[in-house]
Amino acid sequence: MRTTVGIVGGGPAGLLLARLLHNAGIDCVVLESRDRAYVERRQRAGILEQGTVDVLRECGAADRLDREGLVHDGIELRWNRRAHRIDFPALTGGRRVWVYAQTEVVKDLIALQLKDGPPLHFEARALAVEGAEGDRPVVRYLHQGRERTLTCDWVVGCDGFHGVARAAVPEGARRTYERVYPYSWLGILADVPPSADELVYAHSPRGFALLSMRSPRVSRLYLQVPNGTDPADWPDERIWDELDARFAIDGDWKLERGPVTQKSVLPMRSFVTEPMRHGRLLLAGDAAHIVPPTGAKGLNLAASDVTVLARAFAHLKDTGSTELLDAYSDTCLRRIWRAEHFSYFMTTTLHTDPGQGDFDTRLQISQLDRIAASPHAAAELAENYAGLPVG
Amino acid sequence: MRTTVGIVGGGPAGLLLARLLHNAGIDCVVLESRDRAYVERRQRAGILEQGTVDVLRECGAADRLDREGLVHDGIELRWNRRAHRIDFPALTGGRRVWVYAQTEVVKDLIALQLKDGPPLHFEARALAVEGAEGDRPVVRYLHQGRERTLTCDWVVGCDGFHGVARAAVPEGARRTYERVYPYSWLGILADVPPSADELVYAHSPRGFALLSMRSPRVSRLYLQVPNGTDPADWPDERIWDELDARFAIDGDWKLERGPVTQKSVLPMRSFVTEPMRHGRLLLAGDAAHIVPPTGAKGLNLAASDVTVLARAFAHLKDTGSTELLDAYSDTCLRRIWRAEHFSYFMTTTLHTDPGQGDFDTRLQISQLDRIAASPHAAAELAENYAGLPVG
Repeated sequence: MRTTVGIVGGGPAGLLLARLLHNAGIDCVVLESRDRAYVERRQRAGILEQGTVDVLRECGAADRLDREGLVHDGIELRWNRRAHRIDFPALTGGRRVWVYAQTEVVKDLIALQLKDGPPLHFEARALAVEGAEGDRPVVRYLHQGRERTLTCDWVVGCDGFHGVARAAVPEGARRTYERVYPYSWLGILADVPPSADELVYAHSPRGFALLSMRSPRVSRLYLQVPNGTDPADWPDERIWDELDARFAIDGDWKLERGPVTQKSVLPMRSFVTEPMRHGRLLLAGDAAHIVPPTGAKGLNLAASDVTVLARAFAHLKDTGSTELLDAYSDTCLRRIWRAEHFSYFMTTTLHTDPGQGDFDTRLQISQLDRIAASPHAAAELAENYAGLPVG
Repeated sequence: MRTTVGIVGGGPAGLLLARLLHNAGIDCVVLESRDRAYVERRQRAGILEQGTVDVLRECGAADRLDREGLVHDGIELRWNRRAHRIDFPALTGGRRVWVYAQTEVVKDLIALQLKDGPPLHFEARALAVEGAEGDRPVVRYLHQGRERTLTCDWVVGCDGFHGVARAAVPEGARRTYERVYPYSWLGILADVPPSADELVYAHSPRGFALLSMRSPRVSRLYLQVPNGTDPADWPDERIWDELDARFAIDGDWKLERGPVTQKSVLPMRSFVTEPMRHGRLLLAGDAAHIVPPTGAKGLNLAASDVTVLARAFAHLKDTGSTELLDAYSDTCLRRIWRAEHFSYFMTTTLHTDPGQGDFDTRLQISQLDRIAASPHAAAELAENYAGLPVG
């Protein structure tokens, strides 16, 4: 098989890139190792920045998002039994975020792709990217029991942190940056209307907690837990009791309980590989960088990566110039490092490190007090959360 | 001896408090363990916030400051061979700082005190504060070879981190918070005009450096060095070479060298004790809290502590109510924890921790890039540096 842009990975990055390239009249093929049902059920992020919504609209993938997505104009922070709201539009000149699960973005993009898009192969497991330094890079992959090759002008690795694309960049040609956090999230889905209209981020001496939602009827909740936690040690009752304790404020508020339909533990990691291009191989999304989920940046970074990349391929097609592809890595990395810093800031401000002392806890409180007292400190959080401009 | 307010320590906190009480018609006595020459030579801070200058002016101690102090409208940050100026008045609605050494503040306050003020005893070494829980607390001290007592209505401990006042608060009645940093500052005084008009804070892979000044003819410069560094290992030439390397930027700038007249190593510590009052003993300045010097907050916190305290004593005198004294600790601690956080932020953003990884270094760079790019991030730094309102 032969194509212009071979896309390894059919998650949101790969699927959105395929749609953007298709709309620009650029030939591409997507190889996804799992089957469609698995991909559409993969629980991940749920917050879309303004810029991500803009690009989904531009490429015609936002019809259901515009009907069913929940527009959020802020988040709530809780600490020391008090609550403080961060008003995004007021602090950022009108920017807001959408609550719309990654699973739904993926379903919408798959449906479009299968209707009129370029080839999308499920259960096509990439084995290796080869020849990135030459003119005709190749993706070797397994499909229907046979090993096959996809020959490309360019290969884009959208195959996530554990994918094979990054491994095609020789170790001497890349530099990696990493931090693993000494805590994880226990995440649940529950069939109960969310107990708050907006996301609630809670700092507590018992550890961090987050109240989020998937829809007006489905709550998504998270608890900070030690690394290596077995979800089986957390019966539903224990989870609700702990959430109750961590969200507690002085004043009237009640956490509604309901049937827990899913339970899983998520590790927390920061990771960046540089550069994001090697010859004719480009990396995008989680294949190139990971953030802890506290800042809701992972999916949005993937979307901005492929937006920059699609513009660069369109520029190549229109002008014959690779200048935007040459700039791709630097262009994206500025935004990525900003998001890495913000995600680290949100994570370390709100979580309790098992090794932290009382002094560190008081600094967290002082930072949160400052966000509540200072318009500049609040705006700095709001601008980063609602999302910085793409490109 | 008998007085209303016994002040232990004749540094800037104790001397300023004595002046404020004197002006309010409140009787006090200051006991300082060292001699006058020693106190007037003790090299410490050099940056006065707007609020500190305001209170020095109000109490008539700012004549020479207004003639000789250098008004600074900003600082410069350097990192990655670039420079960025933080404009205080533009970012804070007109606030600025003054470069005027603590030694000079102390000289001015001593001269006033000896001219018309209440008793100031040098070489009067406090041994203990006793009876803080009763009505008549006593300071036992050594003076002219004899042990004496000062009986007071109130005792204020302004005797610094190593003083005896804090020790009079029983361990069960106070809580302490502390962080020791894994680096120190090597500070020099040099007889050479400063090579920049404003302070320069430099992040460098070699470690932090700070260019400051004492006057138009005297430079004050600092280098991050490992804890335990012996100044003897740093001949002048080595210091200048290292400063040159850490301040290097792309573009025209030259560090002027001159005779080094003083050389010393300063450890870096964060420390807070709570509460700042026990019965009739009150703590102020370094006796209650320490910040690393990177944010230039130590002297200014001492000034705001005693400003709040003097108002509380005046309120007691005027109304007979201890309500402001009762609120003293909480009032000051809000501002102190803000300054603790800011000093920690400046310190950890600009220094290289010997244990830090490449990821941490890139987060520092991302934070500094953000300060240069975002008016909110720059204003947050400027407001904290130029100083928040007292009280």
